[in-house]
Amino acid sequence: MNKKELLDCQKRIAPYIHKTPVLSSRSINKIAGAMLFFKCENFQRMGAYKMRGATNAILQLTDVQRQGGVVTHSSGNFAQALALAAKSLGVNAHIVMPTSAPMVKKIGVMEYGARIYECEPTLKARNAMADSIAKETGATFIHPSNDEKVIVGQGTAALELLMDHDDLEAIFCPVGGGGLIAGSALAANYFGKNCKVYGAEPFEADDAYRSLKSGKIEDNITVNTIADGLRTTLGDKNFPIIQKHVVGIIRVTEEEIIGAMRLIWERMKIIVEPSSAVALAGLLREKEKFKGQKIGIIISGGNVDLGKLPFKENFNSYP
Amino acid sequence: MNKKELLDCQKRIAPYIHKTPVLSSRSINKIAGAMLFFKCENFQRMGAYKMRGATNAILQLTDVQRQGGVVTHSSGNFAQALALAAKSLGVNAHIVMPTSAPMVKKIGVMEYGARIYECEPTLKARNAMADSIAKETGATFIHPSNDEKVIVGQGTAALELLMDHDDLEAIFCPVGGGGLIAGSALAANYFGKNCKVYGAEPFEADDAYRSLKSGKIEDNITVNTIADGLRTTLGDKNFPIIQKHVVGIIRVTEEEIIGAMRLIWERMKIIVEPSSAVALAGLLREKEKFKGQKIGIIISGGNVDLGKLPFKENFNSYP
Repeated sequence: MNKKELLDCQKRIAPYIHKTPVLSSRSINKIAGAMLFFKCENFQRMGAYKMRGATNAILQLTDVQRQGGVVTHSSGNFAQALALAAKSLGVNAHIVMPTSAPMVKKIGVMEYGARIYECEPTLKARNAMADSIAKETGATFIHPSNDEKVIVGQGTAALELLMDHDDLEAIFCPVGGGGLIAGSALAANYFGKNCKVYGAEPFEADDAYRSLKSGKIEDNITVNTIADGLRTTLGDKNFPIIQKHVVGIIRVTEEEIIGAMRLIWERMKIIVEPSSAVALAGLLREKEKFKGQKIGIIISGGNVDLGKLPFKENFNSYP
Repeated sequence: MNKKELLDCQKRIAPYIHKTPVLSSRSINKIAGAMLFFKCENFQRMGAYKMRGATNAILQLTDVQRQGGVVTHSSGNFAQALALAAKSLGVNAHIVMPTSAPMVKKIGVMEYGARIYECEPTLKARNAMADSIAKETGATFIHPSNDEKVIVGQGTAALELLMDHDDLEAIFCPVGGGGLIAGSALAANYFGKNCKVYGAEPFEADDAYRSLKSGKIEDNITVNTIADGLRTTLGDKNFPIIQKHVVGIIRVTEEEIIGAMRLIWERMKIIVEPSSAVALAGLLREKEKFKGQKIGIIISGGNVDLGKLPFKENFNSYP
């Protein structure tokens, strides 16, 4: 995955995705003590950066593979992304979703015309069902995060951010399955000027933090976090990239996630999902280290179940 | 209030306000059966278009008046707007707010350094307190909506929208005190190509609808609406403009307001306050009349108390 692959990917997917805006907020800058540039993938098609990787993966299928369709398993945004990308490109999509997936995301997948297969919320059950669908239908399996074409695709968000702001000193990403941070780290490596990439994840799903410590891919011990997009674990394709190019992983509490989410909603007037707020929460937790710096924050998505919000009455996030 | 006054105002306030973006949504266009252009004043400084009128009013004070400061009464956005505009311009602000005003708006006013005076939530109590403050302090009273400089200032949002999209066939505005719709109607009259302006208001606060019917300024009978910015009534400065230039007022139910608000939040990933959603709700209610047209929607603001949201669990606004 070299510089040219990232640039080729950007060109390849451009007709099918949005070039999302980069926003700033004076009042959040003041709180952070730094200049923040939010790459707003919540405004991406279907509401998350996953559209980039899904589109890149489908566009590189052979004609025969396209005929067979695609299959994936995902609890959320990648399910919608693959469904919409497949629809846009005239390919059938089969989506394995755990019974625990948020209703708003299931509705999204259905609206995009994909077929949903419900399974138990375990990785084993997901894999088994995706395997059997691939065998039955001839569909090509596309992993949500541990796939080179997906990783390169996800990296185009940071690539666009760096094309607009080439002097960023750091980029913060949430870490779930590792596709976004691996792609972002590649983009920062090829297109940044000594731009350091940091991951942020919940204490309640800190597999990436522990994986970097131990040097091997670790499982999550708990996944009891509001950041539902970050409950997955790293894979053998993205972990080596993360080991090589990511400076560190900052862990945050559930209160910090909700506080950062509320701060973005209140001050920026944009809807971001809890997983996205994790990146800002990570920066705010360690803000003393980044005083006065120019920092990119990848806002990964905005798909929230509005009927289940975590905000308390008369609570002010950052007075 | 002629064409030149609007253009002069736009130049005058430009250094102190944001030129807000105009956003569109494919999926909302599909639901509406029209092409909608949302002028996003929720991204305005302090989160609402009121910043425009407040800034314009203060910028036209004499030096002596500036020394004395400004005073207004407002339950919400104009309070914050005058406070922030005054702070930006080095003028003292005295803000009369009813005890019933949302906490998030009181906090905003305090953060901008203005002095808050709490009063009973009646128009009489507000006026009396503002009068006595003006007498004691020498502050100049600036009405939130019934003031020519404020009206012209508010009209610059529609002016900017028409400068970007000069072929709009209609513009929808929420109607509260009448400043926004009067200013928008002037802008459409001077800068549109036969662009019709419609107001939208809750059935629960339908004073403007009844005022246009009767030909005189009517009071609200009820103000039992979630659209807290629209509980006020028209004034003698804006009513004649509305009579002359506004085509009609569409009334909407509380369910329609919440549904339109949820639709904007879910599909556009932006935070808009209930009063803003009223404009889209009005269009959706009468969408058959506007099929295929290019329509501007003024999103008036995004100041919402996140601890008190109206969304129900597992409810899908427009399936």
